Amino acid sequence: MNREQALEMVRQQLPIKRYEHTIRVMETALDLAEHYQLDLKKVELAAIFHDYAKYRDAKELKRWIIQEQLPQDLLDYHQELWHGPVAAKMLEKEIGICDPEIQSAIYWHTTGKQHMSQMDKVIFIADYIEPGRSFPGVEEVRQVVYDDIDKACWMAARNTIIFLISKNQSIYPDTFQLYNEGLGRNLNAE
Amino acid sequence: MNREQALEMVRQQLPIKRYEHTIRVMETALDLAEHYQLDLKKVELAAIFHDYAKYRDAKELKRWIIQEQLPQDLLDYHQELWHGPVAAKMLEKEIGICDPEIQSAIYWHTTGKQHMSQMDKVIFIADYIEPGRSFPGVEEVRQVVYDDIDKACWMAARNTIIFLISKNQSIYPDTFQLYNEGLGRNLNAE
Repeated sequence: MNREQALEMVRQQLPIKRYEHTIRVMETALDLAEHYQLDLKKVELAAIFHDYAKYRDAKELKRWIIQEQLPQDLLDYHQELWHGPVAAKMLEKEIGICDPEIQSAIYWHTTGKQHMSQMDKVIFIADYIEPGRSFPGVEEVRQVVYDDIDKACWMAARNTIIFLISKNQSIYPDTFQLYNEGLGRNLNAE
Repeated sequence: MNREQALEMVRQQLPIKRYEHTIRVMETALDLAEHYQLDLKKVELAAIFHDYAKYRDAKELKRWIIQEQLPQDLLDYHQELWHGPVAAKMLEKEIGICDPEIQSAIYWHTTGKQHMSQMDKVIFIADYIEPGRSFPGVEEVRQVVYDDIDKACWMAARNTIIFLISKNQSIYPDTFQLYNEGLGRNLNAE
């Protein structure tokens, strides 16, 4: 599947603003993939399809989580966390792409997790820093991402936890584990 | 074992400031135990012995964690988290008290966890709010603890996470599970 075919499939699923976000994530992810010498074709597809399921109805997402035996604890957390894992499954069932590296990067793009692959990290952080984003602290993440993508992912997880706590929202365990993982690394480096 | 015997055992283990903290935790815990109609004798012992292991050498605490097959992931976290689980074991091996309710309250007094017993909650929160404490937010916790001890524990976990993140310190999984648990409860109540 070439870029235009993939983009057209996604364009049909998303409002224009979200489609434009997808284009920016793709461009950011490709820059990072080139820098970190990853498979550009796989990164491109993962970026294009990362939000494929984001505008599906919550009931449909829930049905996928149950029927595809995704982790059922997802249902205890905010539905914002459901579209990544479901899109990874939809990629296989609706699009016919079943590459585990691409699916993993899409699966984890919202929460992050510890022990991410380089491709997981690129999609996770490209989604966080694409030029349309203006979260508090995002500029500092942009400044380190080409030198230390692990630190960038840790900073993003930290910022996300601070934001969620300030809003009294629950935090998915994998996001916390990503935060703790980064500290372990830093502590050991001291 | 009566109160004086228990206090004397603890007094020999702790610097005077920490012993005075222990007295205040005991008094606070007994007030809460009376209010929530718990077993006063058990709460008294749990409070008295909660910091029993706090001034043991880190190497000794580590040895106990390994030899007593406590969760080995404790060793990946700050040693401040080790003295509760170790004290629960020492209570049995050095003092001869093997009451599971008392041991549980001592075990979890630093990190908290989801699904705490009422006695766990009383020791956890008494340690947090005793009159010598002056954490940011502690006064708000004191104001709710006699009306809603679950909310008080959640607020303490939330404050602790905010503090730890501000210091770039790792967060033990059970503490953020306690935070998430409280939100689940609140969300369901809406």
